[in-house]
Amino acid sequence: MPSTKKLGRKRARDLGINIGQYKPGRWNAITDVKGVLVGHSTMISGHGEIIRTGEGPVRTGVTAIWPYHHNIYEERVAGGNFILNGAGEMSGMIQVQEWGLIETPILLTNTLSVGTVSDACVQYMTQKHPQIGRIHDVVIPLVGECDDSWLNDIAGQHVQVEHVFEALENAKSGPVLEGSVGGGTGMTCCDFKGGIGTSSRKLPAEEGGYTVGVLVMSNFGEVEDLRIDGAPIGKLLAPKFEHLPKRRHTYGSIIVVVATDAPMMGIQLNRLAKRAALGIGRVGSYAAHGSGEIVLAFSTANHLHRHDKKRVYKMDVLYDKGLNPLYKATVEATEEAILNSLFASDDMIGISDRLCPGIPHSDVEQYYRRFKEFMQ
Amino acid sequence: MPSTKKLGRKRARDLGINIGQYKPGRWNAITDVKGVLVGHSTMISGHGEIIRTGEGPVRTGVTAIWPYHHNIYEERVAGGNFILNGAGEMSGMIQVQEWGLIETPILLTNTLSVGTVSDACVQYMTQKHPQIGRIHDVVIPLVGECDDSWLNDIAGQHVQVEHVFEALENAKSGPVLEGSVGGGTGMTCCDFKGGIGTSSRKLPAEEGGYTVGVLVMSNFGEVEDLRIDGAPIGKLLAPKFEHLPKRRHTYGSIIVVVATDAPMMGIQLNRLAKRAALGIGRVGSYAAHGSGEIVLAFSTANHLHRHDKKRVYKMDVLYDKGLNPLYKATVEATEEAILNSLFASDDMIGISDRLCPGIPHSDVEQYYRRFKEFMQ
Amino acid sequence: MPSTKKLGRKRARDLGINIGQYKPGRWNAITDVKGVLVGHSTMISGHGEIIRTGEGPVRTGVTAIWPYHHNIYEERVAGGNFILNGAGEMSGMIQVQEWGLIETPILLTNTLSVGTVSDACVQYMTQKHPQIGRIHDVVIPLVGECDDSWLNDIAGQHVQVEHVFEALENAKSGPVLEGSVGGGTGMTCCDFKGGIGTSSRKLPAEEGGYTVGVLVMSNFGEVEDLRIDGAPIGKLLAPKFEHLPKRRHTYGSIIVVVATDAPMMGIQLNRLAKRAALGIGRVGSYAAHGSGEIVLAFSTANHLHRHDKKRVYKMDVLYDKGLNPLYKATVEATEEAILNSLFASDDMIGISDRLCPGIPHSDVEQYYRRFKEFMQ
Amino acid sequence: MPSTKKLGRKRARDLGINIGQYKPGRWNAITDVKGVLVGHSTMISGHGEIIRTGEGPVRTGVTAIWPYHHNIYEERVAGGNFILNGAGEMSGMIQVQEWGLIETPILLTNTLSVGTVSDACVQYMTQKHPQIGRIHDVVIPLVGECDDSWLNDIAGQHVQVEHVFEALENAKSGPVLEGSVGGGTGMTCCDFKGGIGTSSRKLPAEEGGYTVGVLVMSNFGEVEDLRIDGAPIGKLLAPKFEHLPKRRHTYGSIIVVVATDAPMMGIQLNRLAKRAALGIGRVGSYAAHGSGEIVLAFSTANHLHRHDKKRVYKMDVLYDKGLNPLYKATVEATEEAILNSLFASDDMIGISDRLCPGIPHSDVEQYYRRFKEFMQ
Repeated sequence: MPSTKKLGRKRARDLGINIGQYKPGRWNAITDVKGVLVGHSTMISGHGEIIRTGEGPVRTGVTAIWPYHHNIYEERVAGGNFILNGAGEMSGMIQVQEWGLIETPILLTNTLSVGTVSDACVQYMTQKHPQIGRIHDVVIPLVGECDDSWLNDIAGQHVQVEHVFEALENAKSGPVLEGSVGGGTGMTCCDFKGGIGTSSRKLPAEEGGYTVGVLVMSNFGEVEDLRIDGAPIGKLLAPKFEHLPKRRHTYGSIIVVVATDAPMMGIQLNRLAKRAALGIGRVGSYAAHGSGEIVLAFSTANHLHRHDKKRVYKMDVLYDKGLNPLYKATVEATEEAILNSLFASDDMIGISDRLCPGIPHSDVEQYYRRFKEFMQ
Repeated sequence: MPSTKKLGRKRARDLGINIGQYKPGRWNAITDVKGVLVGHSTMISGHGEIIRTGEGPVRTGVTAIWPYHHNIYEERVAGGNFILNGAGEMSGMIQVQEWGLIETPILLTNTLSVGTVSDACVQYMTQKHPQIGRIHDVVIPLVGECDDSWLNDIAGQHVQVEHVFEALENAKSGPVLEGSVGGGTGMTCCDFKGGIGTSSRKLPAEEGGYTVGVLVMSNFGEVEDLRIDGAPIGKLLAPKFEHLPKRRHTYGSIIVVVATDAPMMGIQLNRLAKRAALGIGRVGSYAAHGSGEIVLAFSTANHLHRHDKKRVYKMDVLYDKGLNPLYKATVEATEEAILNSLFASDDMIGISDRLCPGIPHSDVEQYYRRFKEFMQ
Repeated sequence: MPSTKKLGRKRARDLGINIGQYKPGRWNAITDVKGVLVGHSTMISGHGEIIRTGEGPVRTGVTAIWPYHHNIYEERVAGGNFILNGAGEMSGMIQVQEWGLIETPILLTNTLSVGTVSDACVQYMTQKHPQIGRIHDVVIPLVGECDDSWLNDIAGQHVQVEHVFEALENAKSGPVLEGSVGGGTGMTCCDFKGGIGTSSRKLPAEEGGYTVGVLVMSNFGEVEDLRIDGAPIGKLLAPKFEHLPKRRHTYGSIIVVVATDAPMMGIQLNRLAKRAALGIGRVGSYAAHGSGEIVLAFSTANHLHRHDKKRVYKMDVLYDKGLNPLYKATVEATEEAILNSLFASDDMIGISDRLCPGIPHSDVEQYYRRFKEFMQ
Repeated sequence: MPSTKKLGRKRARDLGINIGQYKPGRWNAITDVKGVLVGHSTMISGHGEIIRTGEGPVRTGVTAIWPYHHNIYEERVAGGNFILNGAGEMSGMIQVQEWGLIETPILLTNTLSVGTVSDACVQYMTQKHPQIGRIHDVVIPLVGECDDSWLNDIAGQHVQVEHVFEALENAKSGPVLEGSVGGGTGMTCCDFKGGIGTSSRKLPAEEGGYTVGVLVMSNFGEVEDLRIDGAPIGKLLAPKFEHLPKRRHTYGSIIVVVATDAPMMGIQLNRLAKRAALGIGRVGSYAAHGSGEIVLAFSTANHLHRHDKKRVYKMDVLYDKGLNPLYKATVEATEEAILNSLFASDDMIGISDRLCPGIPHSDVEQYYRRFKEFMQ
């Protein structure tokens, strides 16, 4: 299986950490679900103190996900959600909850750039579909956020329209860059450098052969709580990082996007999204009060054409009895995507010269090997 | 009682239409709830066709509500919500649902300006509270929207940061301008010119003496469905307006903001918000598929200090047995606020010289008088 | 159109009250949706004081609805719900919310008989399907309730297994008995005798030709708030009934069951159920704190076979753009079903010789005629 | 710390398994929250095949929890809930969701006895409070269930009124019997004998000194998925039990009751309940489609007097910033309560001579010791 990471750092599987019972897809990425495209715009500049808000240092960006090619406005897909802890934002979610549909790209950024990114997405969509707001309906973009203010001059609101366009236009299938890229650039997870991570699972043919892909923007938790495949490795790592300053305690968030080609309707996708929350829990989150732990899920199997003249369509729907393998696959891929967001991230120095360390691969590898020995 | 409308058009009560059993407060406005401030920024310019998106005609704006003076970030209030139909947006709602708290101003605008308005509100808040995103938590503004594209060059995204600042800074207590002002400038309701409307109720002392204030941005419905105090006056008005072009059928929305000084906690405010939905229903809405009918409610009675050192606070909470008068008051004030949004609005000519007529006062007055006669 | 009421009292339409724009189906009853069966078991005995709990007087019963013939366990249908105010119970609702499916009959009774009725339904189902709890899954019956303690010795828990079996077995298509029958026997609505009422709407072919049927068990509200087609006729009736004792103030409830043959999935049925709440509101409910105002909705269009070997089925699903006529039809049929529950009910004398008057037809007819004159 | 288990089998802590960072309370049981009382009625009789439904074998019962002494109807407490997967039932939950209050005992039993238990609870309450349904409001009991049909003649509906009374009346503070007792008598968890388990956590004084107690009725999962403190010990145990027949695959459920003396209101208890779901996840549940995974939470800190004449009360409310330790404590206590439900249960032979093995303590102890060694 080709790695999706080109920049030198290994993914969980490269370290021998194979989460769960199912196999990943080709890229072990959300893009293994056919039609899902991912793009990033990454902004890293400046160093030292924030002299003046707006002048950096900048450690932020935007990640764009097209649920099914670039034509999501015309060919909508079924969507659902679950909010494990709602101290965060996914603008546009109210409409997903109401309709069980997704009709815009999904964008991930920092908390104080949600407005700009939403605005830019509207510009992009109205340029691409000039009838929006004139002949056709308006759009309400899906923009999720985490708070990267530990490393980034967040109040400087550095993300601009062009960054959003870049992420939207560069989005493609295939391997996905992970770690400190796009919306994940300045994020921190379990006191290590976090950010973007992805993983996928492909069910065996006898369970439908469906693919589940997950992409996360990770920004939650404390090192003491970090578990890897159940092993409390965070507790072992913690002493080595005690000397580093820690960010404010209830901070944190994670946005999870779950894609599948299994034919599921909105109510089923709400349920699938809940299983991603269990995956977050497995890595050690107790969903802190101040954390925005938000899951969005969609299925690419049915396309709802905006201009279909028919009154009724035939929707392919999985019988509920077939859901369990997808549930398991979602728990597994979420856990692994979070781990990948950690493993892909190198040390980063942010505002005020704060060092956010990349998780140490060799220590983890060693602890994990010892952990697995007890299984013998 | 002084009128809150200075610009010549009468309010429902001036036409003899007294909804419900309770009396309004001094201004018959949301500002009757002490501490609630309202401000508008109104943008009207250009006429004729949209030659180029972004060049108008412009019929839009922003309305700002401070739930309790200008210090809502430091002195948070209890909040709740209800979504009657979610084909719309109130960004920031996820956090209100999670915490049962409000800590930002509430802004109302057009659908495609939600991003800009959210962004501007972040700028305003970070300028006012420079610790946001540095020492303190980030903020997620509450921005509600309706679609004014029938009259406004919505894809031109004309609202700018300065309009948001203007609405926030001009917000004050006392009478509230209604009709085609602020976020309501380009809105259409029941095929008439709609927009901002407000009303209030003051309970008698033996029911607690509390005040409920409602402010709406109305943009829903068709003339045939319009009811006034139960009377199907829309049916009577419809023939006179048959010749006018009608906007696309499933369009529409309404944002309702309910304020009260009754001591209520989040779960009770969710329930109060549901009663506003019944008030929307009384005016004739069946909550069309494409309509964003969204209610936000808050109580000013308890203030949650961001920096309180205590672990536990004493919250004044109304026993549930005392809720019914507040429920009735909310239904009544919502109905009247919607009617005020209609009565306050004059004819408006928007893009493509579309005429959106103000509801004809004299016809309504005459029909309503006849309707009331059956009560004799 | 044949009347569904054989016992002498007229229905709303017989009194010239035609709610809304759409036409009713053949029976103007929930049974107009093909496959829906309704049966009642009515218990009326004793008079005077409650000497000993359990000895009456008895004014109660059970109403059974089979969503699609008697085989609902094997051929499940899509279901949804909305809870306008949850001071009440519909046992089994958690599963409907989770699955968007209905797999049992729906039973309506008094609050303190929910347990017995649920138990009896389990007995009925396990006798009919001996594999339940052995080879197949268990069942969780849907049992809704209102509080009939104003007229009935409710703490006596008079409903027995045989009454439940009677209602289930007698259920049939065609006209539906209304008023003081079945679960509605002892109910009170707007201070008049309430109980079971039903109505339906058939959409014109160009809107899909679908049928919506509604059945209510009404037990809410006060006479002053009663509106008929918008007209505040309750206010006019109130003085004539001032001398009668009133039941405790926050009491009340209404259960609404909405059936349709339109092809809708769970998420859409949740939305449909919300429109029934708007219908409740139109009759004058403000959804009092102590009222259980609960709506259950189902679609008979797709049948989910319990033993289908396939993994995926083709579900007929209405495009959301086709929902609005169904929304309107639901508001209308709910309003009319509540009115029918009132008009069908005669005076009843319950415990302690309390008189609960039937709504006076001639007064209503006269007021309504005067009300309609203003439309001329 | 005294053990709550007298019958010979050890609890998790007796085996050296100490979950999480916080210390348990005195009994390591839900009864460590002052005022919480627990009682069981256990029914074990017969063996072999089900000859005739209703004649056994019987492996079932009822567990009763009084949230705050026996007077919960008069002195109500704040309540909340979370439904991880709703293929199950907790009757009465609609009212908890609406009011954020609990006013009845909580009862746990098998799926097909929910009706009888609800009915019996009504009898108990009306005998104790003869005004119910006459002068005062009616009651809607909270009855949760799991499906014990793998071992029990569930369709025989063996639980009778007297068993419910027994559980209610025997309820007491102090140690709680665990394993195959009360409602848990016939339950199966991760292919081992499950049932009732409990645990508690006491926060240190500097985090408020509050207690969180959890009681579960466990009936979910498969051995392969079982994790103990993160260690995948189920995988190691699985081969030894391969020869045993397994119950039907999507079966299962868990009811979790969370009690605390921390001053929390309904909306906060909903959030606390979500953390119990994370605890379920840690033991290995992916919340299977057919599983009823339902959490109910309450706080004993504030008592809402039914007959208080005041309009407004002073509620002690924890600032949200103090929630995190309670969240962690809930995750921990839920995980440990589930483990205790396993460890306390011996082998049981049920219908058709099916053997459900007790989890083997010595194997677990040995695996766990090896697992902990990797931490050195």
